[in-house]
Amino acid sequence: MSAVKSIESNALEAEMAALGANARAAAHVLAATPAATKRAAIEAAADALAAARDDIIAANAEDMAKARAANLNAAMLDRLALDAARVDGMITGLREVAALDDPVGRVLDERTRPNGLRIERVSVPIGVIGIIYESRPNVTADAGALCLMSGNAAILRCGSESFQSSSAIAACLRRGLQAAGLPEDCVQLIPTQDRAAVGILLTMDEDVDVIVPRGGRSLIERVREESRIPVIAHLDGICHVYVHAAADADKAREITLNAKMRRTGICGAAETLLIDRAALAMLPAILAPLHEAGCEVRGDEDVCALDSAAVAASDVDWDTEYLDAIISVRVVGGLEDAIRHVNLHGSQHTDAIVSEDVAAAARFLDEVDSAIVIHNASTQYADGGEFGMGAEIGISNGKLHARGPVGVEQLTTYKYKVHGDGQVRP
Amino acid sequence: MSAVKSIESNALEAEMAALGANARAAAHVLAATPAATKRAAIEAAADALAAARDDIIAANAEDMAKARAANLNAAMLDRLALDAARVDGMITGLREVAALDDPVGRVLDERTRPNGLRIERVSVPIGVIGIIYESRPNVTADAGALCLMSGNAAILRCGSESFQSSSAIAACLRRGLQAAGLPEDCVQLIPTQDRAAVGILLTMDEDVDVIVPRGGRSLIERVREESRIPVIAHLDGICHVYVHAAADADKAREITLNAKMRRTGICGAAETLLIDRAALAMLPAILAPLHEAGCEVRGDEDVCALDSAAVAASDVDWDTEYLDAIISVRVVGGLEDAIRHVNLHGSQHTDAIVSEDVAAAARFLDEVDSAIVIHNASTQYADGGEFGMGAEIGISNGKLHARGPVGVEQLTTYKYKVHGDGQVRP
Repeated sequence: MSAVKSIESNALEAEMAALGANARAAAHVLAATPAATKRAAIEAAADALAAARDDIIAANAEDMAKARAANLNAAMLDRLALDAARVDGMITGLREVAALDDPVGRVLDERTRPNGLRIERVSVPIGVIGIIYESRPNVTADAGALCLMSGNAAILRCGSESFQSSSAIAACLRRGLQAAGLPEDCVQLIPTQDRAAVGILLTMDEDVDVIVPRGGRSLIERVREESRIPVIAHLDGICHVYVHAAADADKAREITLNAKMRRTGICGAAETLLIDRAALAMLPAILAPLHEAGCEVRGDEDVCALDSAAVAASDVDWDTEYLDAIISVRVVGGLEDAIRHVNLHGSQHTDAIVSEDVAAAARFLDEVDSAIVIHNASTQYADGGEFGMGAEIGISNGKLHARGPVGVEQLTTYKYKVHGDGQVRP
Repeated sequence: MSAVKSIESNALEAEMAALGANARAAAHVLAATPAATKRAAIEAAADALAAARDDIIAANAEDMAKARAANLNAAMLDRLALDAARVDGMITGLREVAALDDPVGRVLDERTRPNGLRIERVSVPIGVIGIIYESRPNVTADAGALCLMSGNAAILRCGSESFQSSSAIAACLRRGLQAAGLPEDCVQLIPTQDRAAVGILLTMDEDVDVIVPRGGRSLIERVREESRIPVIAHLDGICHVYVHAAADADKAREITLNAKMRRTGICGAAETLLIDRAALAMLPAILAPLHEAGCEVRGDEDVCALDSAAVAASDVDWDTEYLDAIISVRVVGGLEDAIRHVNLHGSQHTDAIVSEDVAAAARFLDEVDSAIVIHNASTQYADGGEFGMGAEIGISNGKLHARGPVGVEQLTTYKYKVHGDGQVRP
């Protein structure tokens, strides 16, 4: 390492350490802040976004120009782009978060022991949350507001392509904090695009309590690999629709079509259809609207024999998240076979059974080891908003701490408050 | 690496992989097992321990002979030793775990959405738990039973010094499982003392859902460093007693003595006493019984000026977990100063305030960022049993998933069960 490089890397480490210390100090203030003040800060941030709408769009234009010059593809450009409507969407999102119930200070449990000790378990903020995300600049507003409402300080690391847009948005969040009399450092955007900053962040276990990565597979795997800090992540959504022998044919058709095609790019989109051999008569009617909608069908032998438009699936297909208009289709022997397939090939995200047999459905819901298990509805309901939880920072398919949609409640932990009168332990 | 070594290490990897696959398969069975069957297995294991009492003591004699030959110190020998009374203790412990409420299948939340979807959040087992522990062979019984009662398969890794004892105990747990018609592989003890097995276990993220290390600092740090699997650990317990200006002098004396000296080797033992300058008049009466009990006092300048028996504390003392008859004592300016000291030097484990001022106590309980915060009682109450939670597998001072005592409830996660009638998402 050259001397210059070493000085630079020391400077970056010092900068990140300062960011961490600022976040920790801000988190201590925020933890003791009443809900009304947190709401006021988020509302003021929404006002600041409204006032800065033109500046944000101008900053975004810089990002877009750079992205076009770098030949980013159309999908990435679309995720990056901000216009007045998208800024309005962020403003609405902030006001919705400000209206959520305060997740902090809930008494989750309370008991008085025979020795007179009263023990409360009370929800408290986690502390400092590091969020690492890609392209979409609106995550800056969403994630910042969710952290604030749950009483956590946020260290945000945006994708380099959205740096100007995200900086403009983060400045509005900080203006909101200032207006409400809270430390601006409750929300900090890492002020450099240096990739080494992420590596440093992932080692700051003294000052950062949890890392939430939002992005593609390579980001999430890097974070899981390198992080010394607990991670709340969703890795992928290989979601199944299972059409049981006792399925209602109309529900099977509508649910499969919606689960696959409503939006193909979200994690709750179905990737695989399993169908009981006993229900095969329903299959042509299920596949027809998929073909009509432009969906490629990759089937096993039985499926290809029934559907001349299907192509042969290979072994990889059962483990693939297409995020595209492609569905793999397999015939199974029955409920047990289906459960085994889902637990083996799924990603513990969201899986649905279509059946009029309540006992079979109950068994599927019990035995499929996924965050969300659904009877007779589309997998695309896998969403914090649809669950009535308000905005979400992501959907976790890890099992520890948070499983499924991660909203403000999942961004809290708890502490035990013990109230005594001089008790000492015998 | 020599060819022989490579064959050995491949064999170990294959053996560990088989262990993981067996555990995962057993976990799927266990997750669907009713409470009565789990209780029956644990009761049968207790019966098996009673029947094998002599064999267990004989196996322990082998371990003890090896340990003496290896010159283990008296404290380690004591932790390792089993006699009839200690085996009885394990048997009682198992029966207590079997009598706990079933932590699985609790409906934690239930809501019906405007579209008619009914969404339940239900507690479920985590899956497969890897437990790595040192010397005490009774952990084999305790940890195995806690995992079973919470519906989790256990992979146990005992310390090499207790291998014969732990093997004999694990065999009893497996006999209990068999008697109840459950897969024996719900509990597996790693059948080798090869240290490389731990390294392999920590990478088995497909088949192991969480790692619980129980032991000294070097074990826990190794696990945190190497594990690709989420870890529930407590690193250390640097617990404080803070005597506030408005403390009752008798409570301050009794609580400090108990918090420090009841048992010095447990994580809830106090290591530091903070006392308000305004309460200094109480200090001699607080320190006298500590000196009498043979406790070394390491004080700051003010303390040493008041107490000729005290030795001068150095900066390291404020960050040290003695686990011994030593206490560091510091004078603070008041409540804020005390909170700052605890948050800076503590280990987020257990901290207590002694005060008759309810508002000051409330602020301490709110602002000290620890798993357990106590008003007017001893820090030695930091214990799952004392909290009415039954047996515990440890006390977590991490913030994610489980904080404070880790009992059967903390060994569960949850899933969302969504009940529909054909809903598709607009």
